[in-house]
Amino acid sequence: MKKSIKVFAPATVANVVCGFDILGFAVNEPGDELMMELTEKPGVNIVSIEGDEGKLPLDPQKNTVSASVISLLKQIGREDLGVNIRLKKKMPMGSGLGSSAASAVAGLFALNELLDQPLTKEQLLPFAMEGEALACGHGHADNVAPALFGGFTLIKSYEPLEVIALPVPNLYCALLYPHVDVPTRDARQIIRSKVLLKDAVTQWGNIAGLISSLYTQDYDLLGRCMKDVIVEPVRSMLIPEFDKMKETAMENGALGFGISGSGPTVFSLYRSADNAQKVLSNLKQLLASKGIESNIYLSEINKNGPIVL
Amino acid sequence: MKKSIKVFAPATVANVVCGFDILGFAVNEPGDELMMELTEKPGVNIVSIEGDEGKLPLDPQKNTVSASVISLLKQIGREDLGVNIRLKKKMPMGSGLGSSAASAVAGLFALNELLDQPLTKEQLLPFAMEGEALACGHGHADNVAPALFGGFTLIKSYEPLEVIALPVPNLYCALLYPHVDVPTRDARQIIRSKVLLKDAVTQWGNIAGLISSLYTQDYDLLGRCMKDVIVEPVRSMLIPEFDKMKETAMENGALGFGISGSGPTVFSLYRSADNAQKVLSNLKQLLASKGIESNIYLSEINKNGPIVL
Repeated sequence: MKKSIKVFAPATVANVVCGFDILGFAVNEPGDELMMELTEKPGVNIVSIEGDEGKLPLDPQKNTVSASVISLLKQIGREDLGVNIRLKKKMPMGSGLGSSAASAVAGLFALNELLDQPLTKEQLLPFAMEGEALACGHGHADNVAPALFGGFTLIKSYEPLEVIALPVPNLYCALLYPHVDVPTRDARQIIRSKVLLKDAVTQWGNIAGLISSLYTQDYDLLGRCMKDVIVEPVRSMLIPEFDKMKETAMENGALGFGISGSGPTVFSLYRSADNAQKVLSNLKQLLASKGIESNIYLSEINKNGPIVL
Repeated sequence: MKKSIKVFAPATVANVVCGFDILGFAVNEPGDELMMELTEKPGVNIVSIEGDEGKLPLDPQKNTVSASVISLLKQIGREDLGVNIRLKKKMPMGSGLGSSAASAVAGLFALNELLDQPLTKEQLLPFAMEGEALACGHGHADNVAPALFGGFTLIKSYEPLEVIALPVPNLYCALLYPHVDVPTRDARQIIRSKVLLKDAVTQWGNIAGLISSLYTQDYDLLGRCMKDVIVEPVRSMLIPEFDKMKETAMENGALGFGISGSGPTVFSLYRSADNAQKVLSNLKQLLASKGIESNIYLSEINKNGPIVL
């Protein structure tokens, strides 16, 4: 049995424009790093958290990582173990990039590796969702599933929970996180609880087309399916310069552009890394000209989920 | 140039439970037969219609087949041609099996073959939709697309019109048409114009899963995705013994069971023809015991659309 491990878990883009609450994919950058150490003294401790500006709780019952690790230890009957956790947040929180999902997945993956994989990734998923519920107030899987499995994932259903790994496109993802505050809870609350059936039909045509495009590697089709007539028209109002950023991206080779999760991060997909880089520079400059700072990230789609570093 | 031709165009199952207005597939049985003859005297004539109990109009402007053929002739600048049409309805009308779509597709396919294929199937589609609009009051493509292309088709979007041919599952389709009257217009009108977002999300999880299942040939998944929380709960009330029929089918090997188009025909999919046949016999008997007559059909999924006989 190894005594300590260092792992990485990826940020994730939920919804992917047309797949509200059911689709997501992981990226190679940014993500969280986590060090875990097994000790003699029973109990789970958060030893340190870097990069969170002191915002995350250190109380093991309240912290996403430790709480899900505690649940897992209980489930496998190993509450005798001592677990020390050091978390390096290497990604913005509350940004729509699945920050809490990355942390929860990192912790669960680390523990499972240290214990020689008593559980499959499928079995780890509900524990990650528990952690997510603690952080976001709802136990959705559209960030934790891609963070855990990597690639593109479909949450086919919640009851029963069924996750489907989809083919991973060879594309580049450009992410831009503007430094404005859009709490997940607010972003959810502004969405109407009822939608027009005709809009729902448009949406399921697009999601069906997007799934097909992943299997046939028809990335032009993928782009044509990245349309959202339900959530984006409302949520995009919370994101500064959304329309202008989208226009700029689409004019410079983006297959599609949209909100990552509940925002304010925006993402776009490209065949070419050069195009992605160029758009990111343009968008960063655009926001800077309005006095808004931003972080930018360029990455391929992540294929494997968390890894041991 | 051939002077005459005899063709077959297939019945179709629209919606496929979870894919309201966007999904459909064709079957080998039932379907329509059509004979077309080119003559010297300009004009399109419906010479005879069999099997419609005198219900279909013979007026070339009002009949689905001739009207779409007239549109096509105009489009390709061949209004000089004379066209005589003999239609054999070999399927029930107003049954939810895409009867008008089959007829329109048969006519357009026959003319296109007689003229050595001036148009592709993609190009024929809008003319078939026109015919459908004449018959049903709305120009949907979820019957005409599978009738024309065969197999499983996805209407990704209407504006612009984009149809995607999906992989065809090696399954058997059992169809039962109960002799009760459910006009398409009424069946559409009882559907609410607004739906709960959470139901829409459930629906797009299922449609996404179904598309995936066709590519991976995971027919158990296909069955798990054949669920409809939006339309079926309402429309099934118009179909006698719907719940009992569904239960019987699911207990006897059906992967999924639902309403074909706007009903009242019901369909179910099976790995085994024996199971399909057994269920059809049971359902027919069940309805007969309630004094309701029915037609039953058993077929593989049609792969090619219309054919020359």
